[in-house]
Amino acid sequence: MENKHIGGQTVCLSNPPTAAAWASVVGKLEGEGPLGKCFDTISPDSYFGQSTWEKGESEMLKQCFRLACDKARISAADLDYLLCGDLLNQCTGSAFAMKDSDVPYFGLYGACSTMAESLCLGAMLIDGGFAQTVCAATSSHFCSSERQFRFPLEYGGQRTPTAQWTVTGSGTVIIAAQGQGPYLTYVTTGKIKDKGITDVANMGAAMAPAAYDTLSAHFKDTGRTPMDYDAIFTGDLGAVGHRALMEQFAKDGYDLSDRYFDCGLLMYDRDRQDVHAGGSGCGCAASVLCGHILPNLKSGLWKRVLFSATGALLSATSPQQGLTIPGICHAIAIEAALPKKGGK
Amino acid sequence: MENKHIGGQTVCLSNPPTAAAWASVVGKLEGEGPLGKCFDTISPDSYFGQSTWEKGESEMLKQCFRLACDKARISAADLDYLLCGDLLNQCTGSAFAMKDSDVPYFGLYGACSTMAESLCLGAMLIDGGFAQTVCAATSSHFCSSERQFRFPLEYGGQRTPTAQWTVTGSGTVIIAAQGQGPYLTYVTTGKIKDKGITDVANMGAAMAPAAYDTLSAHFKDTGRTPMDYDAIFTGDLGAVGHRALMEQFAKDGYDLSDRYFDCGLLMYDRDRQDVHAGGSGCGCAASVLCGHILPNLKSGLWKRVLFSATGALLSATSPQQGLTIPGICHAIAIEAALPKKGGK
Repeated sequence: MENKHIGGQTVCLSNPPTAAAWASVVGKLEGEGPLGKCFDTISPDSYFGQSTWEKGESEMLKQCFRLACDKARISAADLDYLLCGDLLNQCTGSAFAMKDSDVPYFGLYGACSTMAESLCLGAMLIDGGFAQTVCAATSSHFCSSERQFRFPLEYGGQRTPTAQWTVTGSGTVIIAAQGQGPYLTYVTTGKIKDKGITDVANMGAAMAPAAYDTLSAHFKDTGRTPMDYDAIFTGDLGAVGHRALMEQFAKDGYDLSDRYFDCGLLMYDRDRQDVHAGGSGCGCAASVLCGHILPNLKSGLWKRVLFSATGALLSATSPQQGLTIPGICHAIAIEAALPKKGGK
Repeated sequence: MENKHIGGQTVCLSNPPTAAAWASVVGKLEGEGPLGKCFDTISPDSYFGQSTWEKGESEMLKQCFRLACDKARISAADLDYLLCGDLLNQCTGSAFAMKDSDVPYFGLYGACSTMAESLCLGAMLIDGGFAQTVCAATSSHFCSSERQFRFPLEYGGQRTPTAQWTVTGSGTVIIAAQGQGPYLTYVTTGKIKDKGITDVANMGAAMAPAAYDTLSAHFKDTGRTPMDYDAIFTGDLGAVGHRALMEQFAKDGYDLSDRYFDCGLLMYDRDRQDVHAGGSGCGCAASVLCGHILPNLKSGLWKRVLFSATGALLSATSPQQGLTIPGICHAIAIEAALPKKGGK
């Protein structure tokens, strides 16, 4: 059997699956940001017509899932697998969004790295011959996250400058065995990295080491350099993590200032929108992927990007028990055209 | 490319990976149960030497992981992937157990179905050529679960007869591309099923429909019947769900009384141990798999079993918001010898 594991943490997909369709549904604040025009649906109602924010988050993801299926001209019955997760305790955001879909379901927990984790596993399930069509999806919601991880919203707690704002947003990608691209070509699975950060209001610092580790592994494993990508995206390192990662790569001799972007920084206008260090949440990387990255690959603006969503693997309980904040980052290369055989 | 998806929800692994080694670490009550002698380690200390039950759960899983690696005569560095999850909010039990392992990590959330979910994905990653050796692991802890999902332990709340007892236990399986078996042969991925159960003290009723759905799909997809298996295990339906599933299959014309077992019922002696409807928790199916099922396949007692762990996809919040309890069940066929080509 062909060994697709090219060493280290990376696999090369021998028949790269295609992102056949995608959709994004976001909240009002996200719609008012610089990417506002890119999203499929902007909801003025933070409840998405439901009675609680948690049910609202599921409804948002459900709408996003239906929209992606519509764009792909498939029904849920055409899907072999759903790969989903979110930030809510026991991932109920995804479970209740998808419970009536009647599709085999793999629940994931990768915190804000979930969009990349689901793409990585979904792409491998197709490339391994286990599926023809799968769906990778995730969501986050400012209000459900804020009250679960931090404070009741009514409390109006003051936020520190390093704090990030959980994106109300969702993204869904339909991945197919055949199609016209963009193609998913290399999967680099992240290791958990823990540099001892304990400040729960500084997720960027906690996740940046994982991003650096996974991206470095990707370049080492593939023989590519950052310069082989038109654009490199991290999930939601925000201002603090973005700067840290730029500095790390500068030490390695790479100036990434023209090609490295963070989804958490792309999402909001920090001068105009009061989000401190930028956006975060599973839905941040997911909606930027589906609203901004995949469309620009399809349009030809970029030929090759590296999408690397980052997650902080803490709970509301773990910091209270004195534990540090481990981070993780999964990366997947996405290319407008199929790479030439034997090329890097 | 070979299509391994044989229809419905099932894939046939073309080069069945092997369960190369396994380990189980459980708590005192589990050690006093009927399977007590089967487990590798029984801890008299519910804290596993740590300062909190949550940290104790991670320590238990870490010990279990190390033991399985030792038995397989590998180090963590030999693993291509870890596939882990647990019941704690944001799956911190697994994340903190594995954070220093330095192995690419896929976090999963399948509630009590996690052992089967991790085996299914791990087996496919190997069979697809993406890995040579992976680890599937999960845990649960009575004390950390009880206070997260139900009541403070000091409260001493009375339990209803249908309630189940969260197993303090963990299981780890090292899956390898080559080896002497037992072999992982068929993967049937479950759909979320929701029959409208709202009683959080009756998980068996909530999960039984998912178990019936996945097992029925497995038999339909493979052309096998329950009689083709020496033993069929559900994860933790307990007394209520076990009876419901038996009745469903009786309606289909199958008397499963001699071959259908539930891990939640195997774990405890309900006459002697005050666990009401039986065991539950990710660690229930995991420790019974590693302490009882895999050893008995290896010893030759059984030639072919179907392991189908079940999960209830609720949180502590979702029932309070009036939501029902969706269930899921993933199944994997495990066989002492490689099936003959072309046989069923």
